[in-house]
Amino acid sequence: MKLSRITIIGVGLIGGSFAKALKAKGHEAHFVGFGPDEQALKKAVSLGAVDSYSLDMAEAVKNADMVVLSVPLGAIKSVLTNLKPYLSHETIITDVASAKSSVLQVVKDVFGHIPVHFVAGHPIAGKEKSGVEAACENLFVNHRVILTPVEDTSEEALSTVRTVWQQTGASVDCMTPEYHDEVFAATSHLPHVLAFALMHLLNEHEELGNVFQYTAGGFRDFTRIASSDATMWRDICLYNRSAIVKWLQNYQSELSSLIELVDQSQGEALFDMFEQAKFARDTHIVKKTDE
Amino acid sequence: MKLSRITIIGVGLIGGSFAKALKAKGHEAHFVGFGPDEQALKKAVSLGAVDSYSLDMAEAVKNADMVVLSVPLGAIKSVLTNLKPYLSHETIITDVASAKSSVLQVVKDVFGHIPVHFVAGHPIAGKEKSGVEAACENLFVNHRVILTPVEDTSEEALSTVRTVWQQTGASVDCMTPEYHDEVFAATSHLPHVLAFALMHLLNEHEELGNVFQYTAGGFRDFTRIASSDATMWRDICLYNRSAIVKWLQNYQSELSSLIELVDQSQGEALFDMFEQAKFARDTHIVKKTDE
Repeated sequence: MKLSRITIIGVGLIGGSFAKALKAKGHEAHFVGFGPDEQALKKAVSLGAVDSYSLDMAEAVKNADMVVLSVPLGAIKSVLTNLKPYLSHETIITDVASAKSSVLQVVKDVFGHIPVHFVAGHPIAGKEKSGVEAACENLFVNHRVILTPVEDTSEEALSTVRTVWQQTGASVDCMTPEYHDEVFAATSHLPHVLAFALMHLLNEHEELGNVFQYTAGGFRDFTRIASSDATMWRDICLYNRSAIVKWLQNYQSELSSLIELVDQSQGEALFDMFEQAKFARDTHIVKKTDE
Repeated sequence: MKLSRITIIGVGLIGGSFAKALKAKGHEAHFVGFGPDEQALKKAVSLGAVDSYSLDMAEAVKNADMVVLSVPLGAIKSVLTNLKPYLSHETIITDVASAKSSVLQVVKDVFGHIPVHFVAGHPIAGKEKSGVEAACENLFVNHRVILTPVEDTSEEALSTVRTVWQQTGASVDCMTPEYHDEVFAATSHLPHVLAFALMHLLNEHEELGNVFQYTAGGFRDFTRIASSDATMWRDICLYNRSAIVKWLQNYQSELSSLIELVDQSQGEALFDMFEQAKFARDTHIVKKTDE
């Protein structure tokens, strides 16, 4: 399907990088930016992320073949509500949020059903920095984008969204929203909240004084994701609540076993556990990233 | 105090780097290596880490002014027992183990008391790689070395050990063994076992299949320390047992609060917690390492 006009709602790191990547590949569409901050939209134009912008929703999405919602999770409901009156039935809508079941529930709440042209998506890429200044055309190269179509999702809309993401350099996988939410609760949301929890614990613990002066490279790397945006991670916790609670509980059970092994000086079992963990990482993570 | 002869027991990453660093600074001592593996000792000589080696303990420590125990934690007791008959009362002994109270207990068990010339130490430096091939003269530059003298420790021995570590480029701090064990349980041992636990949990969890394919840079950095040596970390758990159990329990309490906040959708409290964690990291860790 030919896309002549693509509207990016929220031209930040993700929305800006998406448009930049397509433009770098010579995509013929006109890219329109929409957002609440005119200075940021002017910057997005000057940086070449979008071709034009509008502060008026009706204007921004008029004749759009595709609308990309790249706004914070907590803003999706109000943006969709504002967008709804101006949306043509033919316009493809996609999002980039880190939680999918709850976004689909929001879509259902706003539209009364999930429109056949709504394709929920999640690019697995990011940076600690945010804003259009951090956007770059190769952000998605060799990264994955997950799409979570539902039963009614139009094949054509799905195929179009898949194609544009592939054009950014990403590889695209489809899965159910529920499986997505479980997998990313386990592999992304869990380590993020664990890192926040460690920094919070050691910072609050008066007993030992400033222990951060004694940390080294291992601690720095382990806690790097605790420098992530607090608003974004609050929203992820709120929007992927049940899967995150489940995986935090799974992790607590794992820690309970570990505490028992340490407390009982079970050297052999500790060795086996660490060795399995090391093997899994050396096999699946180091190999993958060629660290 | 002049050191004419320094014996390195265990010429691996730490022992080898210690000797290399001093030799690079033009230290006048003759460095003798001791260990169970002649090939490794030959390699240590050819790499310039030590000047000579011996497979005979009596020979290795004869006339030594200082003995550096850079063997795995689990080997300290047997090494000290073998060393004891050949040790002069004047010889300074120091170690490099990651747990201090239990090492001092082992010393007491072997000698009946803590010799005045025994200075317990812990350089806060390392690599995922081990062995003398990984040793390098700048491993300790801008790193800390913790010394944990006890009441009877000779001032002269302490001062001599402090001086040689400073000559490697490290800065030296003194603290009690108990405070050391708490601080490193919290800042090093805890994150290591948390990383092992996450890899172990996700690897064992059959429900989701291979989730590692969906991980990105945040996961890679968070779990980097789970690629550490399983034997070393088993020993650290066994030798710093009570402090590690205590900090794992502290962390579990932190997770229990977090689970409650997520489960009850307490957005404001989640934001505050993440924001405090992010602030602590941006202040104490990023600043420190200039990430």
